[in-house]
Amino acid sequence: MGLPSGFQFGGIACGIKCSGKRDLAIISTDQPGVVAGVYTQNIVRATSIDWNRERTPSRSFRAVVINSGNANACTGQQGIDDNRAMAESVAEKISASSDEVLVLSTGVIGIPLPMPTIEQGIQDIVTTLTQTQEGFDKAAEAILTTDKSTKTVHCSVGETGDVKIAGMAKGAGMIGPNMATMLAVMMTDACLSQENAQSVLEIAANHSFNRISVEGHTSTNDALLLICSGKSGVQIESDSELARFTESLTSSCIDLARRIPSDGEGASHLISINVSGAQSESDADKIARTIAASALVKTAITGADPNWGRIVSAAGYAGVEMSLNETDLKLNGTTVFQSGQPVPFDQGAVSKSISAQFESSIELKVGSGPGSATHWTSDLTVEYVRFNSEYTT
Amino acid sequence: MGLPSGFQFGGIACGIKCSGKRDLAIISTDQPGVVAGVYTQNIVRATSIDWNRERTPSRSFRAVVINSGNANACTGQQGIDDNRAMAESVAEKISASSDEVLVLSTGVIGIPLPMPTIEQGIQDIVTTLTQTQEGFDKAAEAILTTDKSTKTVHCSVGETGDVKIAGMAKGAGMIGPNMATMLAVMMTDACLSQENAQSVLEIAANHSFNRISVEGHTSTNDALLLICSGKSGVQIESDSELARFTESLTSSCIDLARRIPSDGEGASHLISINVSGAQSESDADKIARTIAASALVKTAITGADPNWGRIVSAAGYAGVEMSLNETDLKLNGTTVFQSGQPVPFDQGAVSKSISAQFESSIELKVGSGPGSATHWTSDLTVEYVRFNSEYTT
Repeated sequence: MGLPSGFQFGGIACGIKCSGKRDLAIISTDQPGVVAGVYTQNIVRATSIDWNRERTPSRSFRAVVINSGNANACTGQQGIDDNRAMAESVAEKISASSDEVLVLSTGVIGIPLPMPTIEQGIQDIVTTLTQTQEGFDKAAEAILTTDKSTKTVHCSVGETGDVKIAGMAKGAGMIGPNMATMLAVMMTDACLSQENAQSVLEIAANHSFNRISVEGHTSTNDALLLICSGKSGVQIESDSELARFTESLTSSCIDLARRIPSDGEGASHLISINVSGAQSESDADKIARTIAASALVKTAITGADPNWGRIVSAAGYAGVEMSLNETDLKLNGTTVFQSGQPVPFDQGAVSKSISAQFESSIELKVGSGPGSATHWTSDLTVEYVRFNSEYTT
Repeated sequence: MGLPSGFQFGGIACGIKCSGKRDLAIISTDQPGVVAGVYTQNIVRATSIDWNRERTPSRSFRAVVINSGNANACTGQQGIDDNRAMAESVAEKISASSDEVLVLSTGVIGIPLPMPTIEQGIQDIVTTLTQTQEGFDKAAEAILTTDKSTKTVHCSVGETGDVKIAGMAKGAGMIGPNMATMLAVMMTDACLSQENAQSVLEIAANHSFNRISVEGHTSTNDALLLICSGKSGVQIESDSELARFTESLTSSCIDLARRIPSDGEGASHLISINVSGAQSESDADKIARTIAASALVKTAITGADPNWGRIVSAAGYAGVEMSLNETDLKLNGTTVFQSGQPVPFDQGAVSKSISAQFESSIELKVGSGPGSATHWTSDLTVEYVRFNSEYTT
């Protein structure tokens, strides 16, 4: 498929992680690019989030520097100074202004960044920047924390394929020792205005990264960027061009987003929850989100238990009007509840289908309205609890 | 302490539960009493909840019949007919009207009640009704499902002690095979108008049963009743009388409510979460509720991990304004975070104090406002997941 043109990548192990794994990445553009961002809604935010929020959307993007192993969150004035120093250090080395450099951090909370290590790392990594797939893969590896594997996506837009999109993400629910972070960087060589880049990114986020959960704990560091190098020379401006681009970007984001709960610590199932027939997409979203957050639904799937009562009752407390008499539920394609009444079904067969597949599907129709939405979550396993209750601080 | 006068109790095993444990209870008043009710906010409601909502508050209460082992929820028209038949059957035997009889059900969802068994049970239990503590205890036992022990409370109001309050509750997070139900019945021999009974019960519920969680899954069957026999002849009417009664009722409800997460399946800790300094009680309530719902906070306590980052970040996504610079956090009395900065503390000592005690305390000050609230939840253990992921249907 190939990478979008106009980008350079690097990923190295500079020594933030004790494990010696890659922990520092840079993605830069040859020329000033357009960048848009969507960030955590947590009031307790990492320093880097505040830095980026003030600098996106923008049309003078030059680089983003990403470190894993330390979130630089709840670190007070020291954290603010360190974040600025990271941006300034990268800017100096690529002849940019620090306002043209974004910063993403993920890892442990409340501990100052090891700045001498990072400064040396930045000096080393800038000499390795490359346009190759190998560089892209190293960067994708350097942003990981407890993820079991890298999460990347490539696609081209439309039939001619003259515009390319690529992306990388990290996230697996929990980061030792403190918390989850979801980071994703989408790249394209299309030309978009900063306003259009921001609006297509928000649409894509709402249908992908905003619809996944592991344990529902919103991190201090969640961030999603869209960087447009413009190098293809293809303008995305008209409504139809924007619609086509949004569709490709959204499906790339969904592809990446689904891999986060799939990789959730201890996850034995990915659960997809589709709610339809709601009065609005927002109502469907609320119901799907509530089902996805239910520990009882998640443990039922862990146990391959076609326990529809847990699903229907979770829908009932989503805070949205629904008519039980018009409610139908399918589990892995088998109808188990229809028009508000239990339907006799082969429980053993449905249980077997849950056991046999990594992905389980919940389809809930709550009426005859036009609203629908899909969420993805992981199941809740003994391994999840073991992982997250280990004494780590 | 003694029971409030004017009540009769019964609790028998009629055969709804396969285990042969008690599963049918009746609480009745000698004379028509006042009754108030607070019910689940789930849109998917058991038939009994709809029946009771239409009949409370009221001043012509005669009896409540309670069955465990079957929730009579999601059972369609059959469930509605069965619920009415239960009320009618009790009413006939105590010479009351069916509108004077309330019904509570708890247990499995989506399966019709075994009506011949219940009809026979009602015929048997009405001959056993008694004012004794033994009868009260049998009723308290008959409403249980997966609870490890009965949950009862007794107190007297004011210095003279001429008014008595007693209560019984059930709930442990989860009911095989389908879901959690919290039921509680509070009784007093004081005289209250139905309006006052309803309003004091709502205040008590908001500070007790509405502030506990195991996994945050609102049941289809949750119900709390306050029954006033009036037998003491003591009128509770003036503001000061109502305030004193509300205080006693609330503390009795808190006493019962705390025992529900304490008895949560697999729980190894009760976690009390006090939030202060918020702009309003409602803001404090939202923050405490969000922390209580966090799987990351719950697993940290399971692992005796003084992982303050999980607590502060959970507060940050509660949807309430808070100032990180004014935020302080204590874990089991030790300050671990102050004015938005980590504080060095003896992690081993705090970890040991979590391990050593059944109850852990989280105290979060989020500013200098007047709002405060306390929630109680259980921790999240491997045993919880095992219990709830067993294949049971």
